[in-house]
Amino acid sequence: MDTYFFVLAYDGTAFNGWQAQRKEHLRTVQETLEGAAEKIFGVKTSVTASGRTDAGVHAVGQVCSFCADTTIPPEKLADCFNALLPCDVRVQKSGRAEEGFDACRGAKRKTYVYSLYFSRRENPLKERFCVRVGGMPDFEGMSAAAKMLEGEHDFKAFCAADSSAKTTVRTLFGVELRRENTLTGEELHIYVTGNGFLYNMVRTLAGTLLDVGFGKRTLADVERALAAGDRTAVGRTMPAKGLCLVQVDYGNPSAAGKNFTEFS
Amino acid sequence: MDTYFFVLAYDGTAFNGWQAQRKEHLRTVQETLEGAAEKIFGVKTSVTASGRTDAGVHAVGQVCSFCADTTIPPEKLADCFNALLPCDVRVQKSGRAEEGFDACRGAKRKTYVYSLYFSRRENPLKERFCVRVGGMPDFEGMSAAAKMLEGEHDFKAFCAADSSAKTTVRTLFGVELRRENTLTGEELHIYVTGNGFLYNMVRTLAGTLLDVGFGKRTLADVERALAAGDRTAVGRTMPAKGLCLVQVDYGNPSAAGKNFTEFS
Repeated sequence: MDTYFFVLAYDGTAFNGWQAQRKEHLRTVQETLEGAAEKIFGVKTSVTASGRTDAGVHAVGQVCSFCADTTIPPEKLADCFNALLPCDVRVQKSGRAEEGFDACRGAKRKTYVYSLYFSRRENPLKERFCVRVGGMPDFEGMSAAAKMLEGEHDFKAFCAADSSAKTTVRTLFGVELRRENTLTGEELHIYVTGNGFLYNMVRTLAGTLLDVGFGKRTLADVERALAAGDRTAVGRTMPAKGLCLVQVDYGNPSAAGKNFTEFS
Repeated sequence: MDTYFFVLAYDGTAFNGWQAQRKEHLRTVQETLEGAAEKIFGVKTSVTASGRTDAGVHAVGQVCSFCADTTIPPEKLADCFNALLPCDVRVQKSGRAEEGFDACRGAKRKTYVYSLYFSRRENPLKERFCVRVGGMPDFEGMSAAAKMLEGEHDFKAFCAADSSAKTTVRTLFGVELRRENTLTGEELHIYVTGNGFLYNMVRTLAGTLLDVGFGKRTLADVERALAAGDRTAVGRTMPAKGLCLVQVDYGNPSAAGKNFTEFS
């Protein structure tokens, strides 16, 4: 048995998240991949991701790992899988990993991006991967709040109340706002890089920054949320479709890593 | 009767182009809008676009005009229509136009963008509006060819052989390549602004530039296509889904015009 990694891209719209569900009628990325693996390797194969993504969340740099006994060259596995996968999930890159590599346990940091656009009316070309905001926020205020979130904090206030996480302390290495003029109009991308994320954390964080941008919350609210874990000080959990997992780092350039596009 | 204009955005994927078809089962943008207009105004209403877009072609800045007798304030018409329209077409802006304004006859220049991305493998987040190219072209060569296309030329070689256009002479005010690093990887946008376009012209032009980028055609081929109308000197017609109409100018800032997003 050898260990392999994939870098995956998927449009989460029609998936019920990453993780295989007990209810068989729920389509998930994991089950879809494991189904293809069983056809290719002839045996049930368990595929582990860097982390679960929720229903409706997208990915361009998700990393997963699995063990298999195969004569297919590692870099050709991507094409073998892609030939069997539905068009909303694609292996971008495949390769052999070091023995014992586990895409979940090995992940050192992940970057998620939350995407917003600003328009009084829906733009059908943006609606799939981006969330509409009906006014222009104060970007400077949002950036100031973003800076406060960086570092090691107890993010209890930013996670769903039913979270089963042992500790709610996480380190965010960067929370960065990037305004981008795209073909179809301006977008705001909130890049969040951390050593781990609580359930709904990035989506709640995005909602909180937006509230600051519209003057509904202050920097003092953000401080209170971080210091006292006060859930009433944070914004709403933004919709899943604006969230995308873009990169997973393993602190080892030879393993998996950055490149979700082949030529970049 | 007053004259109105709309700025429209649509995802062309599930439309059989702009123009109403005799075959009733073909869904078009024009029929969809005229259906909504009939419900709102209570009478059949003919809607004219700046130009037809083909099946599968998208728009963020399409402009259309129509005449109606209504007490609805002009700027509120957008929301009235959006309440009835399917989610793949949206009025971005509405207003009253000068009497006699015709979105087709009045159009002075239009800008289309053809979008490409570069990857050995499909990216599900890009596939809807962007065409994949499996290698990296020579962008400088492509830009040199693009410059040759600017100005007044006979574009006969770049249009479908069955075109019924009276003259195949058109003026391109700009053919510009812009490389953009998006969230999901690098894209190339080919911006083409002209006083008019022949059937399939932008898509064939994109195919020709790409051939130059991969050394399959030379600048001399492009020259021959322009000078002698030689269809064998141009590239293939690229897929519709990479094409988007982004702007229509009427040479009059008070009419319709640029802004397809409200806040830009």
